[in-house]
Amino acid sequence: MSNYEHRKSTVTLKIKRVDGTPLKNAEVVVRQTKHKFLFGCAEFSVVPFANDELQGKEKEKFETVFEKFLELFNFATLPFYWARFEPVKGKPDTIRLKKTAEWLLSKGCTVKGHPLCWHTLTAPWLLEMDNQQILFAQLERIRREVSEFAGLIDMWDVINEVVIMPIFNKYDNGITRICKELGRIRLVKEVFSAAIEANPDGIFLINDFNTSVAYEILIEGLLEAGVRIDAIGIQSHMHQGYWGVEKTQEILERFSRFNIPIHFTETTIISGNLMPPEIEDLNDYKVDEWPSTPEGEERQAMEAVMHYKTLFAHPMVKAITWWNFLDGGWLNAPAGFITKDGRVKPVYYELYKLIKGEWWIDKLTLVTDENGTANFSGYMGDYEISCQDRKTTFKLENKKEFIEITF
Amino acid sequence: MSNYEHRKSTVTLKIKRVDGTPLKNAEVVVRQTKHKFLFGCAEFSVVPFANDELQGKEKEKFETVFEKFLELFNFATLPFYWARFEPVKGKPDTIRLKKTAEWLLSKGCTVKGHPLCWHTLTAPWLLEMDNQQILFAQLERIRREVSEFAGLIDMWDVINEVVIMPIFNKYDNGITRICKELGRIRLVKEVFSAAIEANPDGIFLINDFNTSVAYEILIEGLLEAGVRIDAIGIQSHMHQGYWGVEKTQEILERFSRFNIPIHFTETTIISGNLMPPEIEDLNDYKVDEWPSTPEGEERQAMEAVMHYKTLFAHPMVKAITWWNFLDGGWLNAPAGFITKDGRVKPVYYELYKLIKGEWWIDKLTLVTDENGTANFSGYMGDYEISCQDRKTTFKLENKKEFIEITF
Repeated sequence: MSNYEHRKSTVTLKIKRVDGTPLKNAEVVVRQTKHKFLFGCAEFSVVPFANDELQGKEKEKFETVFEKFLELFNFATLPFYWARFEPVKGKPDTIRLKKTAEWLLSKGCTVKGHPLCWHTLTAPWLLEMDNQQILFAQLERIRREVSEFAGLIDMWDVINEVVIMPIFNKYDNGITRICKELGRIRLVKEVFSAAIEANPDGIFLINDFNTSVAYEILIEGLLEAGVRIDAIGIQSHMHQGYWGVEKTQEILERFSRFNIPIHFTETTIISGNLMPPEIEDLNDYKVDEWPSTPEGEERQAMEAVMHYKTLFAHPMVKAITWWNFLDGGWLNAPAGFITKDGRVKPVYYELYKLIKGEWWIDKLTLVTDENGTANFSGYMGDYEISCQDRKTTFKLENKKEFIEITF
Repeated sequence: MSNYEHRKSTVTLKIKRVDGTPLKNAEVVVRQTKHKFLFGCAEFSVVPFANDELQGKEKEKFETVFEKFLELFNFATLPFYWARFEPVKGKPDTIRLKKTAEWLLSKGCTVKGHPLCWHTLTAPWLLEMDNQQILFAQLERIRREVSEFAGLIDMWDVINEVVIMPIFNKYDNGITRICKELGRIRLVKEVFSAAIEANPDGIFLINDFNTSVAYEILIEGLLEAGVRIDAIGIQSHMHQGYWGVEKTQEILERFSRFNIPIHFTETTIISGNLMPPEIEDLNDYKVDEWPSTPEGEERQAMEAVMHYKTLFAHPMVKAITWWNFLDGGWLNAPAGFITKDGRVKPVYYELYKLIKGEWWIDKLTLVTDENGTANFSGYMGDYEISCQDRKTTFKLENKKEFIEITF
């Protein structure tokens, strides 16, 4: 038995003809078309790309990039940083983001918005308001985005980095001000209420880079205060080195006790020199060049495989998002699957071997018995079944599935 | 204006004769007899001493020790470590502890019990129980001690070191087991409810050595969950070096936002070599000899003065307890005011200069006016006023006081 049995369904297919008689002793072919597990990535250049703002060579380059992206991933994070989404109050970037979400959706991707409330990159114009007005603007903003995007984006990082939020002291900002006044728990309660009110069926996350006992206690406090948290977001930006299996499992153990799905929302393993350990805020590390190296790429691939295996093996983990698809994004880091000159790195192929290989039913030929029945076991997700030139689809969502197919 | 104005009362004394006429132009002498602020110390040898278990030279030594103790302190912490208080189930050490509390009370000390629930030094016989039985025994124990000692001890460290409690992994123990199952907030809720039920007017503390954001968030979660916390206990065992004013103030700022009294429950500054910084759990540091040195004693005195001044200057701090009175107690550290050979260290005299000097009205001669009125300003606490051979007492508890005295 593998470590991944909880990711699989044991399926009984009962296949009939249109007239209701069983399709006996027939060959059918089953193919997986999508994972139930969310394998995701954040690549914000998808916004200009999907809005057809690129031209010539640039456009061609990104066509290849997103072809690769969609071959591997079924989940994408889109940027809703308030400072960029609505730099001028009342002029949100809704149309471009909608077009991007629609495009991703049409390609089979689930889309998540990130983040609705955060002290970093929050709207600078909040600074002119008093705290009551800031809170009002923040909640209005949440209601607006969550309701306007409902149907396209039904999953949101509602609030980001609450552990540090009220004590964040690098610069004054509206969100730290209100978090200081309300306290963490009341602010989280307010922003979650606004989001849930705007889309009761949405999936709403809290997200943090702090994986210490402080975040754990915060979640416990929120749950005791009656906040509905649909998933716990854990960042894992490992610019200073891979955590290793043991630390990852220790974190999983601590956060899984809440019995709430865990999303690894921001996973980074770089393919260049590691950031020095003495850097406390990753944003403080500024380099002109941060090259991807051959040894780095080998290490990155190996560590990413270990990390994905560790997470996929844990039943509470429902999503992993890589940060980002291309090198040279945040911190100019060699964090991507593709180098600046467009070369696909080993990490891509190694994860592909898992996600679309070991953990995937590429093509399975089954033969039905006298009753038109065939059994198999496969990773949960969407499937296509064909018999000669006829085709239909089904979903595997539970440990055991009984599925009737009519050809 | 000093940093300590919030510790003082501005008093108008209105002094009359028994016949109701004002005592005009008369000399009265005011003396402080006790601080409102709790200046405390933990010295557990008080238990055998107060129970008259010592003999000969030992007894004489401790007579001097506790004379010194009572000259400086108005507050004492007594040990209720479950493993020692009730090593055999059903045979608690109640009588000895009661006698100790009575003795301290008779000497003018407020007494606090420490701790009612803690994973360290908890009853070993809990290990034979299931979690429901452990919780039941824990709550029963709390109800028993808090109600049996009511009137003698009305202040308790109800629960100790909750931040680490469910992840404490040095050895199996009953309290970690139930904290893991219930979660921190629910366990704290239960133990506080039991304590409050047993003595509704008691003062109940949570106490921790963890001063990080994790403890802060825990308190926020507890308050949101409706737990009545009467004071926040902060340990400050500085065996690895004095925190300094800045760190102390940063902690005070973070924990004072709850608007709940803060007690510095366990303050240690040693007068010997510092414990190496790499030691994480202070209990891991074992030495045969840990001498008090002349330079160490000078440093200890200076740092203690800074620490007490910083804490006394902060309006939310209501108590400071030193840990312990004599060298060679916990960890065999030179942490006390008195060396192993009975010499009183500079730290004692320096704190005496503050507590019974700078912050104390030793003797104030006032002259009443035509209306029998006299004004003065003094540190809050208990006072004695005398006029010739007559004497009475009053208390200063508020910023402004108007007190009528009849001689």
